[in-house]
Amino acid sequence: MRDLLPEEAASRRVLSRRVLERFGLYGYRVVTPPAFEFADVVERGLGTLAAADVLRFIEPESGEVAVLRPDMTPQIARIIATRMRDRETPFRIAYEGTVVRRRIGRAKKHRQIPQVGVELCGLAGVEGDLELLELAADAARAAGLERFTIDLADAEVARALLADVPPPIADEVTRALGRKDEAMLKELAPRYAAGDRLYALARLHGGRDALEEATKILAGTCAEPPAQRLLALFDAAIARGLGPVLHADPGEVRGFAYYTGTIFALYAEGPGEAIAAGGRYDELLARFGVPMPAVGLGVDLDALAWAIRTAGRAPPLREGVVVEGAASDPRLAALRKRGIATVTVEGVERARAYAASWGFAYVWIGASFSTLDGGTVTSTTGTVDQAADAVASVLKKPT
Amino acid sequence: MRDLLPEEAASRRVLSRRVLERFGLYGYRVVTPPAFEFADVVERGLGTLAAADVLRFIEPESGEVAVLRPDMTPQIARIIATRMRDRETPFRIAYEGTVVRRRIGRAKKHRQIPQVGVELCGLAGVEGDLELLELAADAARAAGLERFTIDLADAEVARALLADVPPPIADEVTRALGRKDEAMLKELAPRYAAGDRLYALARLHGGRDALEEATKILAGTCAEPPAQRLLALFDAAIARGLGPVLHADPGEVRGFAYYTGTIFALYAEGPGEAIAAGGRYDELLARFGVPMPAVGLGVDLDALAWAIRTAGRAPPLREGVVVEGAASDPRLAALRKRGIATVTVEGVERARAYAASWGFAYVWIGASFSTLDGGTVTSTTGTVDQAADAVASVLKKPT
Repeated sequence: MRDLLPEEAASRRVLSRRVLERFGLYGYRVVTPPAFEFADVVERGLGTLAAADVLRFIEPESGEVAVLRPDMTPQIARIIATRMRDRETPFRIAYEGTVVRRRIGRAKKHRQIPQVGVELCGLAGVEGDLELLELAADAARAAGLERFTIDLADAEVARALLADVPPPIADEVTRALGRKDEAMLKELAPRYAAGDRLYALARLHGGRDALEEATKILAGTCAEPPAQRLLALFDAAIARGLGPVLHADPGEVRGFAYYTGTIFALYAEGPGEAIAAGGRYDELLARFGVPMPAVGLGVDLDALAWAIRTAGRAPPLREGVVVEGAASDPRLAALRKRGIATVTVEGVERARAYAASWGFAYVWIGASFSTLDGGTVTSTTGTVDQAADAVASVLKKPT
Repeated sequence: MRDLLPEEAASRRVLSRRVLERFGLYGYRVVTPPAFEFADVVERGLGTLAAADVLRFIEPESGEVAVLRPDMTPQIARIIATRMRDRETPFRIAYEGTVVRRRIGRAKKHRQIPQVGVELCGLAGVEGDLELLELAADAARAAGLERFTIDLADAEVARALLADVPPPIADEVTRALGRKDEAMLKELAPRYAAGDRLYALARLHGGRDALEEATKILAGTCAEPPAQRLLALFDAAIARGLGPVLHADPGEVRGFAYYTGTIFALYAEGPGEAIAAGGRYDELLARFGVPMPAVGLGVDLDALAWAIRTAGRAPPLREGVVVEGAASDPRLAALRKRGIATVTVEGVERARAYAASWGFAYVWIGASFSTLDGGTVTSTTGTVDQAADAVASVLKKPT
């Protein structure tokens, strides 16, 4: 668990607001489940995560077992099932919260991931998948990210090919697929029927041609229909203008035991992992008594912040004004009235030091309104209101 | 623990944003501690709450005891002591988070309180107290509350009078003061030296005259200096324009074992408890190795929302547009491009039902753009962009 100091907390809040505003624009409504959940809810909805990833706690007095959610989807499913059954479909639900994943082994540090996400429940097939792909791309752009790719796959492809393979071999193949370990896949290929096909599939990725090739390789197998479905989605996404960011990855297996169709993940330079990821899980809501198709998307705000820093697009961190003067200095109220974050500090050196220490962008000392590096921005004259107007007009200029 | 459904979550988010923006205007910087904290941090910083109020959990594997914080101040103190020691004083720290208080007895429901607050550390005396009183009033107004009062007291007054009283009597007196039980105070008065004075004090409240009266009653006792200090703060707050909301309560004892000077609480019609409360706790930071005067303020967002509803000032809950049409309807992108939350729904009846169910304010069916109750707002003509402009100009009119 870690603390966010002011600079990091501020940029996290900006990112989260931008992404949630974008979710709102698409008609998604925020719900807020508690950070703590009963173990059975989380376990009933466990998706790509294993029970061992869940951090459990016992309340000594009641013996109650509570968990810190490793992912928010089960809570959203519970809320839909218990408190929102009477609403019109499709459900467009957004959320913001922290998820916690247990680290197993010697390094006992648990991972705390700040997430925002959406669930679209009650809309099957291409239409729902497309809405989430568009939203993922749009939210990434709204957050300030310009260069990213969305890997697109279908969980049914690998699942269909491995359906009749005995568990020990299927597990080995799944692990090799997950690591994109082509040498191991080649070695395992002779040991099960679909071996050569899966090996060929794992080497395919790129544009539409990779998907066409995949449908050829899978022709006549039970993996052909999902491969065709994936190709159709890819084409529909191109028609919606997503072509330049799409990347086909027909051999992807992330969470294939959980997802029931489309899976996707958004990547950009910087973090070594997905910034946003999601997919279709048409069977989950039935476990909560409200059978409905569903597709979800979760954004890892830490990874997003990392990618934005790498792209040099981090929002400016310094803001506000330190006025050199007493707490009763009239410039204080005059700037705050104009919506400018302001504090007073007595003493020229202390005013500068305070501004540097706490991320203020300007100091106002006597008639000199300047940036922290000492460059005078404006010399203020006239009444306090005139001076404050001059300062406000400087600050409101786009940079 | 409870869920917030879309309507409640949206109004909570609006309130929290308004209050935090106001904190930002006063130069407060948000820090974000984790929701979970080690038990020793919380216990070292326990203030007005008892150890029994804290919800503890044990991680079975490691035996680690973690707590859900009953109040965020100890975490802020830990962060200041461990990660921000080198910053310039005063520290102006804001936070947002949920605190959890354990309910003892048969009703095993724990109370989850969404809070925003500030800590001002390193600024002693009247100046710091005034800043927080102003900020409390300003934040309440920014949230939409017009009618409220701020009760002002000093924890040292009661503490000084009870300093030499044996614990059993002092405890009974404290409880009676807490309940404002004048009959009991009268009964207890003959049993300790300051009895008559405390009884007289408990009956005083109101304006400046109540405080003047209190200083007369306490003349010559060790409670006179804090009473004089309280009067001076009251006068300084009047000079800053807070007179109309101030209410003197010299016999208030809330948290007097924790607070070391000024205590205050903001009340309004509706919730039976304080909407915001705080005070000076000059001894807390020393427990974390960074001795500094400090004054804090916490806002209970549930209580604030309640007061705002009672005052009929709740923000409008319906927003956005349902376009009757297919997902590919060009009006969808046209409205979203203009910053308007929009979804498409096929079928006139379904479009209306969807809007009603999910809090959309308008439906756009053919050329008719109307409110949910069927009143046509405008009839759209021309190209999609012209029609969308017309709709956007309607929506941007202040209501």
